[in-house]
This record gives sequence, structure tokens and C-alpha cells, in this order.
Amino acid sequence: MSCGDYHVKEPMVIGHECAGIIEEVGTEVKSLLPGDRVALEPGIGCWHCNPCKEGRYNLCHDMKFFATPPIHGSLADQIVHPASLCFKLPDNLTLEEGAMCEPLSVGVYACRRANVSPETNVLILGAGPIGLVTLLAARAFGAPKVVVVDVDDHRLSVAKELGAAAVVKVSSDIQVVDKEVEEIKNAMGGAVDVTVDCCGMSKTVSTALAATASGGKVCVVGMAHCQMTVPLTPAAAREVDVVGVFRYRNTWPLCIEFLSSGKIDVKPLITHRFGFTQEEVEAAFETSARGGSAIKVMFNL
Amino acid sequence: MSCGDYHVKEPMVIGHECAGIIEEVGTEVKSLLPGDRVALEPGIGCWHCNPCKEGRYNLCHDMKFFATPPIHGSLADQIVHPASLCFKLPDNLTLEEGAMCEPLSVGVYACRRANVSPETNVLILGAGPIGLVTLLAARAFGAPKVVVVDVDDHRLSVAKELGAAAVVKVSSDIQVVDKEVEEIKNAMGGAVDVTVDCCGMSKTVSTALAATASGGKVCVVGMAHCQMTVPLTPAAAREVDVVGVFRYRNTWPLCIEFLSSGKIDVKPLITHRFGFTQEEVEAAFETSARGGSAIKVMFNL
Amino acid sequence: MSCGDYHVKEPMVIGHECAGIIEEVGTEVKSLLPGDRVALEPGIGCWHCNPCKEGRYNLCHDMKFFATPPIHGSLADQIVHPASLCFKLPDNLTLEEGAMCEPLSVGVYACRRANVSPETNVLILGAGPIGLVTLLAARAFGAPKVVVVDVDDHRLSVAKELGAAAVVKVSSDIQVVDKEVEEIKNAMGGAVDVTVDCCGMSKTVSTALAATASGGKVCVVGMAHCQMTVPLTPAAAREVDVVGVFRYRNTWPLCIEFLSSGKIDVKPLITHRFGFTQEEVEAAFETSARGGSAIKVMFNL
Amino acid sequence: MSCGDYHVKEPMVIGHECAGIIEEVGTEVKSLLPGDRVALEPGIGCWHCNPCKEGRYNLCHDMKFFATPPIHGSLADQIVHPASLCFKLPDNLTLEEGAMCEPLSVGVYACRRANVSPETNVLILGAGPIGLVTLLAARAFGAPKVVVVDVDDHRLSVAKELGAAAVVKVSSDIQVVDKEVEEIKNAMGGAVDVTVDCCGMSKTVSTALAATASGGKVCVVGMAHCQMTVPLTPAAAREVDVVGVFRYRNTWPLCIEFLSSGKIDVKPLITHRFGFTQEEVEAAFETSARGGSAIKVMFNL
Repeated sequence: MSCGDYHVKEPMVIGHECAGIIEEVGTEVKSLLPGDRVALEPGIGCWHCNPCKEGRYNLCHDMKFFATPPIHGSLADQIVHPASLCFKLPDNLTLEEGAMCEPLSVGVYACRRANVSPETNVLILGAGPIGLVTLLAARAFGAPKVVVVDVDDHRLSVAKELGAAAVVKVSSDIQVVDKEVEEIKNAMGGAVDVTVDCCGMSKTVSTALAATASGGKVCVVGMAHCQMTVPLTPAAAREVDVVGVFRYRNTWPLCIEFLSSGKIDVKPLITHRFGFTQEEVEAAFETSARGGSAIKVMFNL
Repeated sequence: MSCGDYHVKEPMVIGHECAGIIEEVGTEVKSLLPGDRVALEPGIGCWHCNPCKEGRYNLCHDMKFFATPPIHGSLADQIVHPASLCFKLPDNLTLEEGAMCEPLSVGVYACRRANVSPETNVLILGAGPIGLVTLLAARAFGAPKVVVVDVDDHRLSVAKELGAAAVVKVSSDIQVVDKEVEEIKNAMGGAVDVTVDCCGMSKTVSTALAATASGGKVCVVGMAHCQMTVPLTPAAAREVDVVGVFRYRNTWPLCIEFLSSGKIDVKPLITHRFGFTQEEVEAAFETSARGGSAIKVMFNL
Repeated sequence: MSCGDYHVKEPMVIGHECAGIIEEVGTEVKSLLPGDRVALEPGIGCWHCNPCKEGRYNLCHDMKFFATPPIHGSLADQIVHPASLCFKLPDNLTLEEGAMCEPLSVGVYACRRANVSPETNVLILGAGPIGLVTLLAARAFGAPKVVVVDVDDHRLSVAKELGAAAVVKVSSDIQVVDKEVEEIKNAMGGAVDVTVDCCGMSKTVSTALAATASGGKVCVVGMAHCQMTVPLTPAAAREVDVVGVFRYRNTWPLCIEFLSSGKIDVKPLITHRFGFTQEEVEAAFETSARGGSAIKVMFNL
Repeated sequence: MSCGDYHVKEPMVIGHECAGIIEEVGTEVKSLLPGDRVALEPGIGCWHCNPCKEGRYNLCHDMKFFATPPIHGSLADQIVHPASLCFKLPDNLTLEEGAMCEPLSVGVYACRRANVSPETNVLILGAGPIGLVTLLAARAFGAPKVVVVDVDDHRLSVAKELGAAAVVKVSSDIQVVDKEVEEIKNAMGGAVDVTVDCCGMSKTVSTALAATASGGKVCVVGMAHCQMTVPLTPAAAREVDVVGVFRYRNTWPLCIEFLSSGKIDVKPLITHRFGFTQEEVEAAFETSARGGSAIKVMFNL
């Protein structure tokens, strides 16, 4: 079994979205006390390589990340983790909201990479969990208009409820990109300054490149396809830049601020909850795999 | 006949790389006098659209550009042009060097867009005229090492003479990208921070995406292919950004500084010279079309 | 009589904050029609100098700006102005709100220069009209907390109503800077990432430099003092950068978006209204000069 | 005895500019071997605070820095230091050149903070050791012209030898700033885009603010005065930004590249050499304190 370039050789604990309560702290830890409720950032940088020193620790050459082999994940009842990656939750946030900082960080970081601001209309391709957190993040960064695109009516209706200015239903047929791009532009009713592609397929990247205005940015978050056939040079000739993201960095404080201030509400994304018995764990994974109305499935101890 | 999206409906003067001597100036022009030798920037922005106001006038919605239909080009013995786009040449530069500011601007602007500096090793794909001016520009911006790749031995030998730290001969076979990327990395002997693709083909963009280090930039200058099949998501997942360029902006003063200070010498790129009789003009175009040792073919009045 | 370095030699119309209705357009104008309601950006760049070409047209070497001698201002019933500086107002905005785009632009531009975002707490020194529009702009750019400082209770109460997280009353005594900086830091309850000084006095800049966190920015908007005695090097040693602003650029579309979307409401700043008879004009200037509860005094035709 | 805000309570080893030979490495160190010649970066960040995580580790809240109380310095014959702060010297560099990476880093980092490039003319105030390394760095970053200002003829002659395009002798009289600014502008013969003040006095900052062109940057490196009386608002109104520096970060690889490639030659700055006996050490400090022709005084084991 493998995960990207990583191979799982021994049984491994999975999970990387979590929050919990501090039981014990090291002697040099001053920022936390037993009993504190914290959200956990899952990756531990080496702090010795160039990316770490230069503030791009998500590109660390020797990152230890929950559930990235051979590092165990966080679906456990006790974890040892560096204090500087445990972020105290304010009283008005639940542990569930704390755990949601992880997926939300993907959206927040994509918006940062693409310079989303009150001056950028945003197009989001894909209304799965990552598309939806990117929608929430884009609105929190002040994007005047966010248009969301998907093939699925239910997902689009959720996007609409979460604040999309408009939604556009598309097909999976790559022949109709041009027509759909026109529909998307009409739905935006103004320049598409930033497109965040939460799918990463030939068709979605093609749509992103064509829909984005000259001088804009396409942020590739989804990674469904590796080799992809896309009209890259016409976009390059309009200075539409393509920026990628790998995970996130320095996002937890901002996520907590967004959640605590009410600028973002992730509770509608938590559609199912399970306990930690074997029976419930199995049901949880089945629920998640089934899709349908499930967006985020949460375990509670 | 057409040029990109542009269609030529009437006979049109071509040419957009030129320099000349001022014959007459408008009553409000204070920066120039008859007799001044000037290099001409060929595009006249509208100065009313958003890109113009925001300093990205190369993306102007209503640009008038030499030899872009229906605007006549500069292969003429007299031209009317705005004073603010005529840049006075210092005494130590020839009119030929002035005309070379145009192609050099492409290399200079690509280096600016890709943030080439003394901290970035640069890989250049393609050793045609644009690849060579990009090499000269990258060195002038202080790139510690520039490696140049091409399929042609003669071009690579010119690149070596112009200051490439190393050259790598590649084939046009797309199956061997992985092997060639290894050779390129070995030739660089360090991270490839920036790759400038002066070809713009599926193979070269694939090479660029794979060869560039995590967190680096690929600048797409060449545009041979429109649809291209490339491994975009693995590069995005390493935060290798793809930046495009459209022509250039604000490059003439810097080109003149580079040439005048001796940091760049474009004279080796001028391989052939012709006069302006019909016979010579035809010979000139034949020389240029034949390729071979011809890099830049110059007309002199 | 003079205005900064400018000297008024002949009678001159004043005024630079205005909106109106289009009466007539030039033959090449496609963006506007007679009857359109527009807000006017008051400065006309030359579009030939380096700052104009580089997108910093507010630093234009040859700017023609309403009411900056010898250019007449906008306190008139008819004005000729370039179409690209007339911004159409949506139906839900009044002409008064259109006129308010000018002072609001100062706040918006200061926030842009200081990179105000959802990740920056903002301190504003001075709660006059410019301090208040900066408060509104900082909140619209997503600043989590904005603290406002002034010597006047009434102004501070207005700031509180307009959304300041906290206000701090200070004295004009320069001896107590240290104590007041402590009070300000306590009121912020977190790092002061950006300080916008809307006064520009020795004391306020000293406060700004000391209050701003390491790596933060001080934006100097007010210009009460020219020579000022301030502890610059200790701030420089903490990499607190000082950025200045001159007017604004490219702010009208964003101001209109902020007003139209309801993210900013400037109506509470319009405290007095007058007609255009001589009697009313005189009363208007007296009201404005008297201060007190007057923030913005508006003329309506 | 104290050093800035730091107080020396016990005898402490001084020194923070050094290079040496690896004697022993930890079991996890893969980048270095005994016998390797290395230059040492003197500050050890905590890698837990926000500035460290964000890539601004020079602003670390808990930095351990050679000879900053209570941390011992490097004027010793053996030091234990993290491998990631020991940079291997190529064969063509001496240990003395390795030690010079420390002062050179100040100049390199100032140039980075001020965005020195082939497009920025640079003015340097002060031709002491830091002014001279800044001159060398500015030239290596490609600055077309560097003008150096000092009160001392000998220092100016050294600056001229090291590549200053022009030098300007000034007085210490603050009354003549305006006249001297004119002389400086004439010596530059073009816009002063960046000024690096290596003195940090009221007069030099006043000169910097007045001499720098609209939209330019003043980088404050020297810190002779704390409170200073300067015309800050007129500079702010021309968007002349003031950026500070605290030490440096991520500069060793670039310094080694500059030295190894020959773009920078620091050997002329090493004017005196001493051994490590008590007698020689005392003579060394006397030489350095006496000034005169001494720029950098080096100890060799």
C-alpha cells in the first residue's frame, strides 16, 4: 500500500486532523498547561534545511508528518507533539472546530499563495470538502465574489448556502470547456482574478487557464491527474501564473482567528459524528467512503 | 495570413526591432532633440485600462504594437513614435545595439518575472536568439550559474562562448525526459532555482517542471505548442510556480544600462548585415529563414 | 497663499472630493453615457514618466490634480475630466457616497501600502476624518483588531461606534509616550502589526515606532510636523519599517466595491450638508473649521 | 558593562566573526566531516517562535548569539555549534575569507532588504567597515552606480579603490545638509534609488531622506543615535520608505558564492593580522581601537 511516493511497510496509525486536551507538558514549555484545549498542526519540520530557514517549512526536506509513512498519525487517544505546533483554542471554539483547522488550512494557504484579497474575484473548481473550505477562506480574505463550479447539484447547493455568489454546474466532458468557460465568466460578471482548482484534472486546469483574466493566478490544489493535457502557453502569454501548494504553513493562528471571530463557520461541514469503538470506526469510514451528503466525518472520544 | 489571433487584411509594414536618429520632435517634447540616436520600444499602451494604470502596460487591453495588425511595423525609413518610448543611446552604443534592445528585452523581462538574482541558478531551454539573450540577461542579473540546453551543437557552442556554465545536448524524443533531467541536474551541480523555457513544447515544459527545484519558478517564454501534455500537478505539489511573459515592459533603460556598462555584449549575436535595397532585403529574409549560423540579421540604412 | 510647495498666484477653484452626473462624453468614450452617476478621481497623470509607466502614478512627475495650483478644483457645477478617472456608481450608492470615495481612498491606500490583511492587527493614531476612514478600511481589509488612539473623547466614541475593538485616550504630553505605549499594547492584547499614524507629529511617530511589533510596519499618513525628533534606530533594529503614502492610486473601484457591498458605511461620517448658495457655502466652511461634531461637510447642488 | 539592552554579569568570551576546521561531528550530521573548513553563522534561533517559523529568524524571540550576553563568543580555539550553521568553504577560499562572511553578511542583508538590483543606484553613507562591505555587496547585486559618502579622505579613497563610482566628502555640520545633498545628487548623476545609512545619526538619516528619489528606500544599518531629529514626513510624502535591518539571515551561502566566484574580494579589507598570544591579542585590540588605516584586524591560530 502506498500514499503518493510513500510506501507503507508496517501497520501504521492514520489521521492528521485533530484537536485534544493537554495532559502533560515538557519542563521547558511555557505556552501551555495541562487542561488546555489545543488544535494540532501535523507536520514537524527539521528546521535545518534551506526551506525551513527561509520560512517555507512546508517544503522541508525532512518533514515528519502525521500518517505520512513511516510516521504514525493522530487517530489515537494520546499523542506526543511539539508545543510550538499545539495551538490553544479560545473558549468559544470546540475541539471539533479545532480539528477542522487542518482542512481549513488548505483553503487558507491556497488563498495566501494566490493573494486573495478584497480586490480579487475568486473562482473555485470543485465543491468537495477542500473546495468548500477554500470558499470559506476566500470570503474571509475579503474576496468580493466567489463562484463555485462542480458536477454535482447537492455540492453546489451547499456551496451556495456557504456564501458562493453564484454556482455553475458543469459536465465531465472535456469537449465543452469553451462553452462552460463562457458560462463561468457570465456567472462572475467581472474578471476572474484567481482560480483555485480543487480537482487537478486536465479538464479543470484547462477551464482554470481559460477562465482566469490576464495577469491573474491559477492555484492548483487538487491532484487527480499527474500528466495532463492543457493549453498552457496561451495562458502564459496572458501572464496567468500557475502556483502550486503543498499542505500549508503558519495557518493555525489565522484559522483560529477566523473561527473564533465568526468570520468562518465550519460547523455546517461536519455532517457525521462517531465514537471510538471498533464498530463505530468502521461505520465512520463507510460513511465517508459512501460520499453522498457526507462532507466531514468526525470522531469524538 | 495571420499572426496569433491577429489577421492581416491589407498590406502591412513588418518589423519591430529598431533604432534610429530623431529628425523632428513635437512642441512639448523636452527629452529629445533632432540628431539624438534612440532605441524604440514598439508598443504604445492606452494608459486608460486597468493593466496600464497598474503598471502592467504590456497587458494593455488596447495596445498598438509595431507590426501587430493593423498597426504598421518599423521596417521603414521614417517612423512617428511617442517620445516617451524613444530611449536616447549613449555615445558608446551603436544603432545596431539599440535595435537589439528589443530582443534583449524579452530575456530581461523573463528574468525579472522569474526573480533571477545572485541567489538563483538558471536553466535555459533552447539556445535560439531568445534563449541566448536570456542567457546574457540572467548573467547580468547575477545568476551564479546558467546551464543551457538545446538539440543543436552549434547553438550550444555559441551559448558556451556567451557564458553558459555548462551546456547539455538533448534529443527531441519525449521518452527520455527523465534521463535528460538527471543530466541537466548534474550539469548544474546544485538546485535549479529558475528555468526559462524558450521553446514552449510539451517536452521542454515537462523537462522544466521536473528539473526545477521545490519552491522554484518555471518561466514560459517560447510558445511552440498550445495544447501540451505535461506533469503539472507533481510540480505544483513542490510549489514550482509557472509564470508566463507577454513581451516586456519598462526594459529599455535597463537594456541600455547593461549594454553601455559592458555587462552585456550583444554584438556576437549580430551575424549578418544587409542594406535596404529590394535585393538585399530579400537576401536578408532568406538568410534568416535558412537558420544555420544566422542568429540576428540586421538592416542598416 | 500656498499649499505645501505650491503657491496660489491667481484666484483658484478649490475642492477635490466630488461625484456628479455625466452630461456629455467624448466621441471615443465607450464606458460612460450621459446620465451616468460617477465618482471622480482627482489626479490626472502624465503617463509618460517612469512612475506612471511603473504603476506608481500617484508619484507622477507632472500630475494635474484638482485644486493643486495652478489646477482648478472640483467645487464647481461643471467639470471636464478624463473618462478613465470617472467611476460609475451602482444604483445602491448615492452621489454623496461617491464623493466620499476620495477621503476613503486615503485609508484604503494606506492599508494597501501597509499590507493590512486578516493577519495584521492595526493601530490607528488620530481619530479625525482620515483616522476614521482608515479604521473603516482596515476592517474591510479584514484586520482582526483595530485600536484607535486620540486626545478627544468625542472622536474616540465615534471610532468605537465605527468598529474599533478598543480606544485609548492619550495626552499631548510627549513625556508620557512610554506609559501610553504600554496602555496601547494592553488595549490591543496582541502584537501591533501595523500602525497608521494619521497625525504625523513627533509624539505620534514616536508612539508608532515604539508600539509596533518587531517586523511590523508604520505607515505615516498625517504630516503635522516636518522635522521630528523620534527614536528611529531602535525601531529600525527591530525591522519596523516606515512607509509613506502620497494620496492614492487605483482605489476608486475598491472603494465602490466596499461601499456597494456594505463592507464599509461612510454615511455616519457625513455630519453636515449645505447647498451651493454663497450664504450656505460660507456657513459650510465655518462649520468645518469649527470642528466639534463635524466630520465631513457635504455640498449638494 | 553592557551591550545595547544586554548586561554582562560574568566574564564572557567575545567575538562573533570566525571560521575554523571541523574536529568532530554529531552522529546525525551528514553534511560535514572532520577536517572540513567552515564559516560560522553566529546566531542560533529557537525555531519555535513566529518569526523563526515565518523565515525571519533574525528577529527570533529567543536567539542565542555569539557574545550577546550571556552567550559566550567565538574568540576561542574550540567551539560547539550546530552543523546547519557551519558552511563549508570551497578550496579557493581561506579561513580569513570565511570569517569575513560575518561582516559581509550585514552588507548583503541590507542590499536584500532594500531590493538592490541592476535597476537601483545606491548611495552609501559612511565608509567604515560596514559601509565598505555594503559597497561590495551592492556591486555584487548589480547596482549600476554606487556613490559613497564620508567625512574622512582615507576611507573615501579606499571606497574608490573598491569600486565606488564616485565619492563625496561631507562635513559633520548638520547645517549644510541641503548643499551636500545637491553634491551627492550631482555625483550620482541619476536617481538615488536606495540609500544605505551605515552611520545612523540625525545628519546622515536627514541626508538619506532628502537624497533618495521618490519611491525609493532608505535602509538604516548604523545606529549611532537613538533619538534623532529628521525630516520624516516630507520623505514619507514622496513614498521614500525606511527599512531597518537586524543582523542578517540566510546570507552565508550567498557570501561564499560571491567570494568564491570572485564577484567580491574582501582581502583588501583585512589590514592587520595577529596571533593568539596574550601580547598579540592586546596589540590587536589596540590596533583596531586606534582606527587609522585599520579596517579589519584578524586573529589566526
